[in-house]
Amino acid sequence: MEITNPTLMVDEAICRRNIREMMGKAHRSGVVLRPHFKTHQSREVGEWFREEGLKAITVSSVTMAGYFADCGWKDITIAFPYNPREWNEINELSSRVKLNVIIVSREALDHLKSTVKNPLHYWIKIDVGTHRTGILPEKEEQIREISKAEGHHRFEGLLAHAGHSYTQLNTEKARHIFDSALKILTTLKLQTGAETKLSYGDTPSCSMLDSFEGVDELRPGNFVFYDTMQESFGACDLSQIAVCMACPVVAIHEDRNELLIYGGAVHFSKDFIANDATRFGVVVRFEENGWSPRPIGGLVKISQEHGIVRLLDTTMPIKIGDLLGVLPVHSCLTADLQGYYLSLTGQKLTKLQRPL
Amino acid sequence: MEITNPTLMVDEAICRRNIREMMGKAHRSGVVLRPHFKTHQSREVGEWFREEGLKAITVSSVTMAGYFADCGWKDITIAFPYNPREWNEINELSSRVKLNVIIVSREALDHLKSTVKNPLHYWIKIDVGTHRTGILPEKEEQIREISKAEGHHRFEGLLAHAGHSYTQLNTEKARHIFDSALKILTTLKLQTGAETKLSYGDTPSCSMLDSFEGVDELRPGNFVFYDTMQESFGACDLSQIAVCMACPVVAIHEDRNELLIYGGAVHFSKDFIANDATRFGVVVRFEENGWSPRPIGGLVKISQEHGIVRLLDTTMPIKIGDLLGVLPVHSCLTADLQGYYLSLTGQKLTKLQRPL
Repeated sequence: MEITNPTLMVDEAICRRNIREMMGKAHRSGVVLRPHFKTHQSREVGEWFREEGLKAITVSSVTMAGYFADCGWKDITIAFPYNPREWNEINELSSRVKLNVIIVSREALDHLKSTVKNPLHYWIKIDVGTHRTGILPEKEEQIREISKAEGHHRFEGLLAHAGHSYTQLNTEKARHIFDSALKILTTLKLQTGAETKLSYGDTPSCSMLDSFEGVDELRPGNFVFYDTMQESFGACDLSQIAVCMACPVVAIHEDRNELLIYGGAVHFSKDFIANDATRFGVVVRFEENGWSPRPIGGLVKISQEHGIVRLLDTTMPIKIGDLLGVLPVHSCLTADLQGYYLSLTGQKLTKLQRPL
Repeated sequence: MEITNPTLMVDEAICRRNIREMMGKAHRSGVVLRPHFKTHQSREVGEWFREEGLKAITVSSVTMAGYFADCGWKDITIAFPYNPREWNEINELSSRVKLNVIIVSREALDHLKSTVKNPLHYWIKIDVGTHRTGILPEKEEQIREISKAEGHHRFEGLLAHAGHSYTQLNTEKARHIFDSALKILTTLKLQTGAETKLSYGDTPSCSMLDSFEGVDELRPGNFVFYDTMQESFGACDLSQIAVCMACPVVAIHEDRNELLIYGGAVHFSKDFIANDATRFGVVVRFEENGWSPRPIGGLVKISQEHGIVRLLDTTMPIKIGDLLGVLPVHSCLTADLQGYYLSLTGQKLTKLQRPL
């Protein structure tokens, strides 16, 4: 298949290696891996997990839960606070899979109980320091109350996302974030009962740590593809990044040592690493069987369809029509923008489409 | 139609007013309006332009040109440098519409001439100061040469995009940017011949100025929807913004005066206004017949699906399940992410989908 415009390539071998590594780690720690499928949103990538024995998954929307239910997944957590406006879709879904939803207030649980007739499982989201959402740990009474007011649904456990691990990390720092969260969760468990499960996870922590004693499940997502932001945190190296955007070179601006590629914000989204020469991605070369992870430059600026590249070696012979690879800065958002991915053997990998 | 998840609403009346205003301005200045359809990418929104008499359009990709050709548009400029890898699609398109492409090097023109057999029209992109792409004005000889090497294609004119107008503007500053660009283009016209057309345009300049003497056509795009970034430049006011994301409230964090809405980077993209309290968008209220443009807060932080809102009036009674409106910071990127738009009367407006 000839590549004519920006196309996100997936290296299946790297992807499967990332999957096996994280599953092995979870297995050795005696915890369930429930990876976040929001990163890839793809039926086929999901199958690579299933072939390694995976049973339980996490998604970020009700629509995505429906997609993966249609792909045959039977145990799904929607890791986004219960949205009362989607009760009907949630009710339908919980008739066909083991559905887990997230509760962050008593009002949400009451709405769930009065509208969703099919029994489901709920987790209470605890704010362990990120302050995005979740109930604050000091509200012990509220947490206990929500855990006990099950009705026809079932309280499953306490769930946390250490979003504050999305920063430059080392093992010690990741361990500190994990230990603090674990302390909060185990203290709260005294309120909610011994049966309470604990769910934790994010890619930086799960990549840097090797044991997760005390929690029951892990929910990293990004590790399946990784990206240059994770690399900047120290969570992976460039050779572990499993996606690369193939971008045609359309103009050469020698006077300022820049290339213009076809590849912009509608292909990469607009996340970035501040104060970094490879702000929007690391530029690499394609080779016979994929790409080399050795950086040859950076994607320094993007607008809607335009990408500006600066090369490290200004003498590199490049002409218009050549393809350059870009390891994206944030693979979840980049992947979300694609209609499909292309494997290195030229197969299209399908994925969830936006609702029409 | 009940709104259950983040949905981009379009106010047709505002949109049509924006269209009429820009078309009137172009008409009074005696220039052709060739609006950039990359902002809306929608068949129906295109029809609103057509009803006002529009004939010529601009798009940002070959795929988008194909979509609007299928919608019956007959005169299309692809305002992105000619991509040699798409010569075949370009050849097909130029058999059915008057196609204009952008050339930024002699190599590109040579490739175009040797591959694309159906005659088309080309414009030379001149870099009038943005330094994204285009040929530098001092390369007069190169520009003249490319304009004369038509072969079976036809040189149409010189095209410029003053991307450096994307900053806080006033009429005087916009006039200065326009005058400088015009001076560059008219000087180059002495090289390329009296028949050379001049194409200019971007939403900030076209919104702030009233006369465009000296150029032949204008290509603003964003004005059809506008957004809070344009408002921050001074190019529009909030009441001219024609799109608003309807977002369900899913959590209330009173302790820090924040709300969590369903609406994140996969709905808005991740453009932002630096050092602004309404970084990712201005929060408004829905009313009987649409939304009020009066700000009630700002969208201060987003991740993949989560949006964090701070309200100006902390006593405003809001509960989970309520809908809040967000006027987006960059409507082109936000619109690109949608599968459809919803009109205030509940009709779905279709748009270009990503390739499968």
